[in-house]
Order: sequence, then C-alpha cells, then structure tokens
Amino acid sequence: MGGTKEVDKPYELAIKFAKFYGGKICVAPYVPVYDLKDFAVWYTPGVAEVCRAIQKDPEKVWYYTNRWNFIAVITNGTRVLGLGDIGPEASIPVMEGKALLFKYLGGVDAISLPINVKDPDVFIETVKRLEPAFGGINLEDIRSPDCFYILERLRKEMDIVVWHDDQQGTAGATLAGLINALKLTGRNLRDAKIAFIGCGAANIANARVIEVAGGNPKNWVFVDSKGILHRDRPDMEELKKKNPWKYEWAMRSNEEGRKGGIKEAMEGMDVVIAASRPGPGMIKKEWVASMEKDPIVFAEANPVPEIWPWEAKEAGARIVATGRSDFPNQVNNSLVFPSVFRGALEVRARTITDEMAAAAALELAKFAEEKGLREDYIIPTMLEWEVYPRVATATGLKAIEQGVARKVFSREELYSRCEEKIKEAREQIRVLMEAGVIRAPPEGKIYG
Amino acid sequence: MGGTKEVDKPYELAIKFAKFYGGKICVAPYVPVYDLKDFAVWYTPGVAEVCRAIQKDPEKVWYYTNRWNFIAVITNGTRVLGLGDIGPEASIPVMEGKALLFKYLGGVDAISLPINVKDPDVFIETVKRLEPAFGGINLEDIRSPDCFYILERLRKEMDIVVWHDDQQGTAGATLAGLINALKLTGRNLRDAKIAFIGCGAANIANARVIEVAGGNPKNWVFVDSKGILHRDRPDMEELKKKNPWKYEWAMRSNEEGRKGGIKEAMEGMDVVIAASRPGPGMIKKEWVASMEKDPIVFAEANPVPEIWPWEAKEAGARIVATGRSDFPNQVNNSLVFPSVFRGALEVRARTITDEMAAAAALELAKFAEEKGLREDYIIPTMLEWEVYPRVATATGLKAIEQGVARKVFSREELYSRCEEKIKEAREQIRVLMEAGVIRAPPEGKIYG
Repeated sequence: MGGTKEVDKPYELAIKFAKFYGGKICVAPYVPVYDLKDFAVWYTPGVAEVCRAIQKDPEKVWYYTNRWNFIAVITNGTRVLGLGDIGPEASIPVMEGKALLFKYLGGVDAISLPINVKDPDVFIETVKRLEPAFGGINLEDIRSPDCFYILERLRKEMDIVVWHDDQQGTAGATLAGLINALKLTGRNLRDAKIAFIGCGAANIANARVIEVAGGNPKNWVFVDSKGILHRDRPDMEELKKKNPWKYEWAMRSNEEGRKGGIKEAMEGMDVVIAASRPGPGMIKKEWVASMEKDPIVFAEANPVPEIWPWEAKEAGARIVATGRSDFPNQVNNSLVFPSVFRGALEVRARTITDEMAAAAALELAKFAEEKGLREDYIIPTMLEWEVYPRVATATGLKAIEQGVARKVFSREELYSRCEEKIKEAREQIRVLMEAGVIRAPPEGKIYG
Repeated sequence: MGGTKEVDKPYELAIKFAKFYGGKICVAPYVPVYDLKDFAVWYTPGVAEVCRAIQKDPEKVWYYTNRWNFIAVITNGTRVLGLGDIGPEASIPVMEGKALLFKYLGGVDAISLPINVKDPDVFIETVKRLEPAFGGINLEDIRSPDCFYILERLRKEMDIVVWHDDQQGTAGATLAGLINALKLTGRNLRDAKIAFIGCGAANIANARVIEVAGGNPKNWVFVDSKGILHRDRPDMEELKKKNPWKYEWAMRSNEEGRKGGIKEAMEGMDVVIAASRPGPGMIKKEWVASMEKDPIVFAEANPVPEIWPWEAKEAGARIVATGRSDFPNQVNNSLVFPSVFRGALEVRARTITDEMAAAAALELAKFAEEKGLREDYIIPTMLEWEVYPRVATATGLKAIEQGVARKVFSREELYSRCEEKIKEAREQIRVLMEAGVIRAPPEGKIYG
C-alpha cells in the first residue's frame, strides 16, 4: 500500500502494458505489395499454380510456404507458471510472451495456441490434426505426468518438430550449466553423484537429457513429495500405472538403496538439482554442508529458489545456479528453445531428439567455456546474442547427423542462415519501433 | 514453349515468388523491446499478473491479449479454388494469401490453419477446441454441402465470430451489386425474379443473404446439375437427407413450378445469378435474350464466367457482373471479408449473423451509390480503400444492435477505430518494405 517495491514492479508493469497494447504479437506481411494487382500473384488466380505444385510434390510445401518457419505455442493451461490449472484463456499472456521470445531471439514465427482439451489422448489427437499448418509445435505449461505421455506420443506420431519446453528447454540449460560446473570442480558427468529434488516435468527431463549426454543414473537419487525414490517404496505399483516415467527412474537410479527425504538424498552427493517448489527453506544449509566437497547446487524453482544462493554459498556450495536473472548462473531456457527451433526448422527436421537437445546444451557450454569459465559464469547470458546462431547450428547439424533433417547444409551454410534469420527478426522490430508502428509508451520505456 | 501469354503471367509469377519468399506472412512483435529486462514484463515474472487478472475476470482476455484481433483461416482442403480436394498442405498458399489480404485490407491478424480432418463432425469438434486462441474463424474452401453443416453448427456452438467466406463473403458482394443493379434498372429486391444457376456454397448463401435483405424466394428458381429444383423432382427424398439446405430452397422457391434446365429457368427472369462451373458457354446468349427487359446477369464462375460479358451485353443484358478484376463490376469478396471481420472483431462480436453480412452489403452498395452508379459501376473496387472502414462500421453497429457485441461504441468511435487499425496495417507493410525487411525482388516489382 503506497510505494512500489522493486520486486512487484514487473507485475504492475505487465498489467499496465497489457492494457495499453492489448496483445504482444501480431501478423505481418512477408512479401511486398506494390499494387493491388500483386494480389493476382499472392492470391487468385496465380496462387493456384503454387497449390498444384505442392499437390504434385508434397515436399515443396517446405519451400513454397512459410510452414517451415511457423510454429504453435500450444497449451491446455493445466499448469501455467506457478499458477496451476488456470485454463487456456488465462494462459494466453504467457503463450504470447513466449511467441515474442521465439521471434525476437530465434527468428521463429510462433503463435499462441491455447486449446480447450484436458484429456491427454484427446489433446494428442487434436494437435495431430493441426500438423499440416506447422513446422513445429512448442508444448507449454501442461501438467505432469500428462506432459510426458503427450510429448512421447507426439514425437513418435508427428512428422514435425515437437518440443515441450518445460522438459527439454530446461534440461538443455541445466545440462549446459552442469557440464561447466563439473569441469570447474574437476569432475566428470559419468561419475557425478546427483540428487534430483522434485520429479516434475523439469527434473524428469533433466535426468533424461543428462543421461543422453553421458550421465550414469546408478549414481543418482530422486526425491518426490513422498521422499526418496527406491524400489521398495509401498507406492511403486501405483506409480507404475500413474507415472511410468517416474517409476522408471525409481527402478534405474539409487543403486545404493537410499531411503528418507531430501536430507538423506543430498548427503555426500556432488550435485543437487532441485526443481521442486519455491523456497526459501526447501533446501536447508546443513544439507548442503553434508554434501561432497565443492558441492554444486542447482536451485531452479521460480520465483524463489529452493535455497537462496548466498545461503548455499555460506554452507559451502562452490557453484550455485538458479532460474533467476538477478543472480549469476541463470538456468534460462530462453537460451535454448529459440535456437533449438531455429536450427531444427532451418533443416526442416522431422523431430527433435533428446540428442539434439543435448547437442544444443554442449554448444551452450562450449560457448561459455570459450569466454572463460568462472564460478559465477557457467552458462552464457541472453545478452550474448552470438550464442543463438551457434546453438542453432549445433542443433541442426545433429539433426542432419541423425538422419531426421529434410534439408542438408554444411556448418557454414547453416550458421549463416540461422544468423540471417535472427538478424531479420531484430531488424523487423527495430524498424517497426523506429517508425512508431510499434507504439512507444508515453514514458518511452517498458522496464526500469 | 516460348513467350508468356498475359493470362499465364500470374501463375508463373506465383511460382517464381513462392520460391523467392518461401511464404507470405510472418509473426511480428506488437510491443517494443528496449532492453532484455523488458521480458520481465512481457514474460515471467510479470506476465503471471496478467494471467491472474484474466483468470479472475475472463472477459479481460478480450482486452489484455491479442485474441480479439487474431483469427484463423481454417480449411481441410476439400475444395480449394477450382482445384478440388487437394488436401490441407497444398492449400496453404491460398490460406496464406487470404491471411495477407486480411491484414492488408482489414488490419486483421490472420494465420493460415489447414487441418487434417475431412469428416464434418470431427472438423467441428476440432475447431471448437481451438476457440480459446481466436477472436474469429474464417472457414475457407470446404466442400459443399459439408460447409453448410459446419458453418451452421459452429455459428451456434462457438462464442466467437465464425464465417465461411465462400458463402457469406460472396453473398455480401453479390447482394451489394444486386441492390445497385436493381436500382439502376428501376426494380426492387422484393419483386425481383431471380434465376440461381448452381447450388453450391456461393449460391445457397447468396440466396440466404438476399432473403435476409428482403428478397422473396417465391419469385426465384434454382438450377443444379440435374436441372431446375421443384417439389416433384424424383430425387427430393435423397436431397432431403444429403443436402437439406438445397432441399429447403427446392421447397420454398419456384412457386410457379417451372421444370427444365438453365434455359427454362432464365426465361422471363429479371436477374440471373450464376455461380456454377467455368464458362464460356455455360449460359447461352439466346437464354439471356429470353429474359425480362433490361436483364441483370451475374456470372460469378472463376476463372472464366459462365458467359463472357460482351456476349451477355450483345444478347441484351443491361448490367453484367463477374468475379474477375479485368471486367467492370467485379463481385469481389475481398471487399467484404476484411471489413466484416474488422467491424465484428472491434466490437468483440460473439458471432456473425447473416444480418451483419447484409448490413455490410448495404453499406457497400451505398458507398457505390454515393460515388454515382453506372451500368459499369454497381460495386466499389478495392482501390477505394475508404470503403473498408465504412463497411466495418456498418457491420459492427449491426452486431451492437443485434446484441451480439461484447463492446459497445458510437458510430464515430467505431469508425475511427476501424480506420486506425487498417491504417496501422498499411503503415506496417510500408515501413517494412521501405527498410528492406520485406525484401524487394531483384526486378523491383511483383506484377507487371
């Protein structure tokens, strides 16, 4: 009441500018119109010839239309940010924001597409029917475990790029940071003992992608709201039915058979990766202190990490990463999804594999390493925009290598195309802002 | 084969520029980004507050997001242009072209959304699930009679604007031209004797909207591929089941009980409205000569009208209209759909009624009348861009009058908002072309 706290500022500004702009993305022409006669080329009668060409050779759709660069940010609104099941309509502001990031950071034409379907099978069936419209699908904010089932089936059953950012995006960023944190502390991925705190979309995918990159689940322990996953837990049969993904980790991890809670899970571990519930206090200082020497702490809950970075440091953590931009080492999937899609779309990929997500993460890690690793710099920041075409290229090349690309490029070609498309997007917004087509707010700025 | 005929030019250019641009529309930001920190407002954490506001008051989605101005051009590709059932992928060039027209002429943010569903019930169910994403749906190129059933049910069951352009768009333009043609020949709509040649999407809707505007079906005759519709036709029972829309016109029209073909249908009529199969020769000169004095001929088939305008004139037609831009009096739904959507979206309409389509047509007719009617000017052309905000306003006001608008404006307010949004779109493309973000082709032009 009276006076705005800094921490409330984004919320207040978001409402204010939602009212002022009434939406964050729009549609724009990609072709010139010099004269109304040009519509005889863009529309009837000329367009019929383009239709016929695609009918004759369906692969031409990837070159004669914008389908190749056009994706949908699809949600059913069942788990939006930390807000829970708020439904599809109320999720639009997030989906529009995501679409804006896709365009601005990755040059990807993304639209917000919340749909009114909760049942996972019906959801899958619906998204599949939309396949002809898009080059890719970015799933967003779908509750767990539905999201695992949905992603798994859509990846298998659709012939375009399907990605669930709360899974692979987070996993890509986590893996990148983890690789460099391990490097800085003289460890390797295969032997790293990791405690995963939380078994939702983020950590199930974190584990999956870390394994793809060479991690060994036998050295890991998972903790859900009922404690450590182990083979003798009384709810194993139920878990097998309701959440086979979690069940699988219960079977494959924790070779030493630990039991207990977060405390017991963390003891003597090299790394803790928490993606559970907002802190502080979810992870206690003494639990960090009980870890192996030079422990690595990833506390990814938003908006407040499971433990404050300074507390973790006081307790002996050597490296701390969070989901927040106001601390060092932000595990930020905005570093991942725009470039992964950029690369995957550029090669007209038929899917995004976990190996492609891992390749993106490795490139992200490499980029930071080239800049010089420090305990407070294990992952690039969004300001380093050269990282986007780099990661895009790594993703696209992996798709080519795995045989899931429709179009083959050399590294140089691919890099220059990715770079060009991202620059085009930056130029688009710059020009529209400069001309006032994107209106400036009366105060001349958004944040700050 | 050496040398391009003028008539083939649009086809050749369409292929050439499809390759060059690889798509006709893209996504653009609608808000500025001055700094990466602004994403704390456009995305997390700030965006959560906008989600919460919509969750609390769902009507706010119409003001805090771009849903209000965002529509999908949806098809299943079962009847694309004159190409038939070419499927959803091959239809994209048309849907993108339509989206381009929506933006350029109406300031409407439209995307191409071909879907992989033929069955009408499954189609309906799928489109309904997409409702949270859009302010409106433009159905396109769906085969008849499926399109009647689909439009009827979606209009009833969705709480946003649903329009099938091959029905209402064409009907709006036809009605506008018809009103002025009747005026020029001293007739009125109620008494006009009309022969409808062809009973597909266009003519079934033409008849429906002309009736809404005051026409009297008892004075009309319909002809399908089997001849004149009358109550004693042997296929009436079959028709009732398979195409109740056509059946209804068979029951309600042709009071005098005519039988026969096109020839018999046209004899002594004031007006012929043909939307059947490409000519020339579908309508014979002598049939036009057999009509009432000063006959009115609408020959709407594309690309070649049922009878060439000069032939109709030679046979005594006083006024001739076609679907082509290279003859006077183009019955052009591009005059209708961008403005109807502009107006309907501006008032956040819950539906588009046939009365709204008729109101749009009346305003279109009035605009031409104000400019001065002539036998070769019964309907405005696309060059007269002031017609768009005028028609938009008429549509929106009718929605308000009929109680289907979520937002109420005065005529002046509504006009100025429609005008502003259309100008914004023109400005958007101008600026992007000028800066070269929309690339110029090497020859510096598209057509000509």
